[in-house]
Amino acid sequence: MYPKSVSSLIECFKDLPGIGEKSAERLAFAMLGFDKDRLTTFATAISDVRDKIRRCSVCNNISETAVCPICGNSNRKKDTIFVVEKPKDVALFERLGVYNGLYHVLDGLISPLEGINPDDINIKSLLDRVKNNDVSEIILALKPSIEGETTMQYIKKILENEKVKVSKIATGVPIGTDIEYIDTMTLEMALEERKDIS
Amino acid sequence: MYPKSVSSLIECFKDLPGIGEKSAERLAFAMLGFDKDRLTTFATAISDVRDKIRRCSVCNNISETAVCPICGNSNRKKDTIFVVEKPKDVALFERLGVYNGLYHVLDGLISPLEGINPDDINIKSLLDRVKNNDVSEIILALKPSIEGETTMQYIKKILENEKVKVSKIATGVPIGTDIEYIDTMTLEMALEERKDIS
Repeated sequence: MYPKSVSSLIECFKDLPGIGEKSAERLAFAMLGFDKDRLTTFATAISDVRDKIRRCSVCNNISETAVCPICGNSNRKKDTIFVVEKPKDVALFERLGVYNGLYHVLDGLISPLEGINPDDINIKSLLDRVKNNDVSEIILALKPSIEGETTMQYIKKILENEKVKVSKIATGVPIGTDIEYIDTMTLEMALEERKDIS
Repeated sequence: MYPKSVSSLIECFKDLPGIGEKSAERLAFAMLGFDKDRLTTFATAISDVRDKIRRCSVCNNISETAVCPICGNSNRKKDTIFVVEKPKDVALFERLGVYNGLYHVLDGLISPLEGINPDDINIKSLLDRVKNNDVSEIILALKPSIEGETTMQYIKKILENEKVKVSKIATGVPIGTDIEYIDTMTLEMALEERKDIS
């Protein structure tokens, strides 16, 4: 129906999450309206990601260098490791600008149901980092789901013989949200983790 | 925040219609999860579109050849030209499989408000095609909007001295749609263009 190169591009777009047949067509046709320079820029951006992006050998975050800029930054506190699920989460917390320690990217969460075991995610290297460095606190920032909680419990357990504090970010009602729209599990957690008003 | 090549890719995605900051990030990160082959395929698809896609010298549809497969198909009726706004519309009608004539892609509609004049779209070559070929009918399949109607009226006018029938596809209530949800203008058109039940 479409010229072969256009069909191929549509197929590529369909590979992306949340992009169905119609959206893929819409995006491919939008690109047909781009001038040659913009198409070159787009193709180059993809090739660059393919050729330049690797994982930081320390924290496993995406990086263009063997050690990422955060791990390589001498101004950051080396004694705190913030454990997240995905590289994107690092950017999220960096944008907040309130944390000045290091990160550790797990690349997934333990999920027995989906057959994801501790060995399938980047947990062992966290233990190595704690053993080989002077780490005083591990902050777990995983999502409050069964998988997230399981992973946090597992990490807590493998670190129990190490001299390191393990904390997790608070679960509760998000600011500005009407309580009636919060699920019961979150409300229970918020109640359980209630704090004295000082 | 992100490595440079990832930021560049996010910017490229933001260039696409309907893709905002968040979606662009989501798509770029999804691509980070692709293996190198899939990234190569995607980059190549874009380069191919850039290098191979041109416009058919007859009908102005997108094509990888100087004359598109439809115009070059000797089994198609050469005496009917179906006029559409965009290359995508050709694929839409081809998929229906009920039309066996030729097409003409305008690449836009006349819109005095947006400063789009008849000279800005591919209308003159339609007149040339009618003058130089044995065309018996022009079917206008432009959207029923002010711009569409203006364009159809204009084409009707420039063809009034040619021996060619000019028709347009019907405006009316889409099949399966409850009449109460149809806008008044469509209803008026549907009433005006009512047909005897035979």
